[in-house]
Amino acid sequence: MKSMEKIVSLCKRRGFLFQSSEIYGGIQGFWDYGPLGVELKRNVKEAWWQDMIAGHNELVAPESAPGTFEMVGLDCTIIMHPQVWKCSGHFDLFHDHMVDCRESKKRYRFDQVRGRWVEYQDKKVFVATMAEQEQELDEVRRRGMKFFKLRNKDADKLTVNDQSLTIDKLDGTTQVLAPDAKELDTLTAPREYNLMFKTTVGALGGEDDFTFLRPETAQGIFVNFKNVLDSSRVSIPFGIGQIGKSFRNEITPRNFTFRSREFEQMEIEFFCAPDQSHDWYRYWRDRRLAWYKSLGLSDEALIMREHHQDELAHYSVGTADIEYAFPFLPEGEYGELEGIAHRGDFDLRSHMEGKLDPKTSPMTVELGEDGKPKHRGSGKDLTYRDEATNEKFVPHVIEPSAGADRGVLAFLCEAYTEDEAPDENGKMQTRVVMKLHPRLAPIKAAIFPLVKKDGMPEVAQEIYGTLKKHFNVFYDEKGAVGRRYRRQDEAGTPFCITVDTETMTDRTVTIRDRDSLKQWRVNIDDLTAELTRRINV
Amino acid sequence: MKSMEKIVSLCKRRGFLFQSSEIYGGIQGFWDYGPLGVELKRNVKEAWWQDMIAGHNELVAPESAPGTFEMVGLDCTIIMHPQVWKCSGHFDLFHDHMVDCRESKKRYRFDQVRGRWVEYQDKKVFVATMAEQEQELDEVRRRGMKFFKLRNKDADKLTVNDQSLTIDKLDGTTQVLAPDAKELDTLTAPREYNLMFKTTVGALGGEDDFTFLRPETAQGIFVNFKNVLDSSRVSIPFGIGQIGKSFRNEITPRNFTFRSREFEQMEIEFFCAPDQSHDWYRYWRDRRLAWYKSLGLSDEALIMREHHQDELAHYSVGTADIEYAFPFLPEGEYGELEGIAHRGDFDLRSHMEGKLDPKTSPMTVELGEDGKPKHRGSGKDLTYRDEATNEKFVPHVIEPSAGADRGVLAFLCEAYTEDEAPDENGKMQTRVVMKLHPRLAPIKAAIFPLVKKDGMPEVAQEIYGTLKKHFNVFYDEKGAVGRRYRRQDEAGTPFCITVDTETMTDRTVTIRDRDSLKQWRVNIDDLTAELTRRINV
Repeated sequence: MKSMEKIVSLCKRRGFLFQSSEIYGGIQGFWDYGPLGVELKRNVKEAWWQDMIAGHNELVAPESAPGTFEMVGLDCTIIMHPQVWKCSGHFDLFHDHMVDCRESKKRYRFDQVRGRWVEYQDKKVFVATMAEQEQELDEVRRRGMKFFKLRNKDADKLTVNDQSLTIDKLDGTTQVLAPDAKELDTLTAPREYNLMFKTTVGALGGEDDFTFLRPETAQGIFVNFKNVLDSSRVSIPFGIGQIGKSFRNEITPRNFTFRSREFEQMEIEFFCAPDQSHDWYRYWRDRRLAWYKSLGLSDEALIMREHHQDELAHYSVGTADIEYAFPFLPEGEYGELEGIAHRGDFDLRSHMEGKLDPKTSPMTVELGEDGKPKHRGSGKDLTYRDEATNEKFVPHVIEPSAGADRGVLAFLCEAYTEDEAPDENGKMQTRVVMKLHPRLAPIKAAIFPLVKKDGMPEVAQEIYGTLKKHFNVFYDEKGAVGRRYRRQDEAGTPFCITVDTETMTDRTVTIRDRDSLKQWRVNIDDLTAELTRRINV
Repeated sequence: MKSMEKIVSLCKRRGFLFQSSEIYGGIQGFWDYGPLGVELKRNVKEAWWQDMIAGHNELVAPESAPGTFEMVGLDCTIIMHPQVWKCSGHFDLFHDHMVDCRESKKRYRFDQVRGRWVEYQDKKVFVATMAEQEQELDEVRRRGMKFFKLRNKDADKLTVNDQSLTIDKLDGTTQVLAPDAKELDTLTAPREYNLMFKTTVGALGGEDDFTFLRPETAQGIFVNFKNVLDSSRVSIPFGIGQIGKSFRNEITPRNFTFRSREFEQMEIEFFCAPDQSHDWYRYWRDRRLAWYKSLGLSDEALIMREHHQDELAHYSVGTADIEYAFPFLPEGEYGELEGIAHRGDFDLRSHMEGKLDPKTSPMTVELGEDGKPKHRGSGKDLTYRDEATNEKFVPHVIEPSAGADRGVLAFLCEAYTEDEAPDENGKMQTRVVMKLHPRLAPIKAAIFPLVKKDGMPEVAQEIYGTLKKHFNVFYDEKGAVGRRYRRQDEAGTPFCITVDTETMTDRTVTIRDRDSLKQWRVNIDDLTAELTRRINV
């Protein structure tokens, strides 16, 4: 019933999402939000900002740090000084590995062309496929192959250093079939490829003027840590949140808006005392999962995946992904919505004094001629002095990092429902309804005059004008009421308000609930309060 | 009293604005919004979105088109297909002209190094200066020159084709003194320089993969015109609004956030019937000016500057700039906040069928070998069919294009006030207060317990918790109440709520008004209603 194809089609038809630059054939990995989509996305971001930052007032905190804490916002530029990315590690390490196919002239991400084996003309060969598993299956069937698929879990464990498992064997025991090739062994060895978009600032255009579009909003928070401390009188523990666009030059963007080249993040960097960081990590992991559930994602479709100990960086005590069962994934698989990472003091320290010592850091650090790390930090002191104890320390950081577009996509997928409801003639028909949480719904209520006469349009317009001051509402007088209901169901509008004959005598209107289809009467003067109560559930 | 220096210093000290990447020495033309700044900017954008898009319900419309009209939103990507910029004209024509100085090795924008003449060692020479007029005056005085300044109005009229007025004369009657040079005639002839930031999409990195960061949000709306029409059932006249970042690689960013390389726009493209476009142009010009006034910009500091007839493109019946008397400008000069342009059908037609005929277009169009315009549009039909008359036409466009950062800067400048108010000992002292409109103020109210005992903090916390659900409020219990007031005055907080001894018996608190300094008592249970009423004025 629920399929990605149907969801994508509804998104386009009703103005949730369009492909960017569509009239010019589109540009891969970029998506525009239409009139309904922009309101939905604004509501998701607004809910996050209200619940995490502006309206944050959590009194319950971890056992080791009872009491409350502050959350403040920040809005940094997309283009920053290039040294930010050198010290953060992105310049040297934010790579994918790509392979080229000599036959098809196409380019693939290395991790998408490994890990699977097929029988090909009675030989067992390594099959290089795009990761869309359905596509892979079709392809394999079409070519008449039997296939053996490594468990995803095992494939995840393969690192770039495990090339021996795949590419190295090409010259010997194993042969590779590229996704779009007919011949075997047409793939080159993997090469590094930095995912940051590069651009030039200023008119000179020399090598010194190169910089990058940020691949994450987080670094803007770290480099402003001291500015926020000095201007806001916050004390540890506290968090800084930011919403903004980030850019990653993905080799193979795919799955609708799930992996885009331009996307929006909602990131928190939460600064705390090192000895309490364990507790705060667990606190944020639980709070963020609860947030998605509070806005309508179902328990069954959500999982919290704790990274294995051997997947963690040395400075981290834990990283967890909140994952959602997107319909484009095979049964039982999940895609990342948000990562909550314990980052220790790694980031602040990197910007303080340059990269960590390569001996203790698991990251590859480029060394200068003096044998020291090539990129030095700012040299600025980013330590925190505790007013009570006078102790100085580099705070530890918990980073709940959410994708706004992925959130929107999950809410859209969760909302898509087909059920049976009576049409305008009372006959049961299949109904497509977007069961979005009222806080997220682009249109909160639609107002209809039952018929286009007897003063009903005027009363409906008056209600529209009153409600419009508080909510995004919609006025519709065209066609049978049943059809107007259906149009609002597809848009995810939780309430439809109809002005009828009775209204003209007693000033009551019917409200119809999108999900239960129940109807009840409310006095016009109570509508604002009624909707306020039902939207902020 | 009000000076740019004081405003910039307050912005940094109180966390409105920081220089981007400051710990790495900064990056010119990029600014980060701190905890107070991000809330202020969010409020400016939210006010625009609410008043122009989501809450729009204007029944009064121009005489030629009485009734109401719809406004919908959109959110497009920053990176679009490169053909968008070729057909919009930006690829060929979005240039500044720059000149290099052989002596100082610096680079200047051509329009900033022309139009002024000085006496230099008894000769009349053309003086090349940066546009900061104060700086120019100092420089001129320091070098002991007398100067003659062309009226700005006249300088504006000079076009690139008027090079004869300046650079051409270098070899003959006139000599140029570059801003940072000691010798005469060290400037090169002006060269074209495209202001769009260039980047590469995809891993291949060939010439075909170059594209640009958008220099304006408008084109995203034009290329989605048909998508919005097809998905939203809107009919003409209607408007599409968008808020988002744009990028221009300015040669000399300056005046704090006024001319930045990364900035945020709030743009409307309003589509209407050609014969009504004149009226709609006037409608939007007036409505947008009124909007700035409704949020606190004073009549005296705002002007509407209509462009001269000979400044207009051939397709335009009018363009007006809303300008503000920024404190960094000399007395009597104004800087652009927003432009309202009548764009005719130029943009939709460009994307429909390629560039306009060079014979009738005043823009320089690059011609291909066949003598036709080099960049063709999408070939898609972007005409509109009127349902009532069945007539097909390309709509005309009115474009109110506002700068969000410039708006924020104007509101900050307008708000900055020094007056006299009693300090904590009742002595009159100079007070710095940001008189921001309550809708725009980052913090709506601060809640203080008069003293840190007798149960007052608990009651104040309870009030804080209740109000925090509706407004961004702040709790402060540190220091004398007088000092706490002063801190909130600098942050622009319109209301301070104090819990005192009386509160403990009758549940009333004092509210203190930031601007009038008046105080009155309100029952705790009425606070939400009282604040709601006073904020949404």
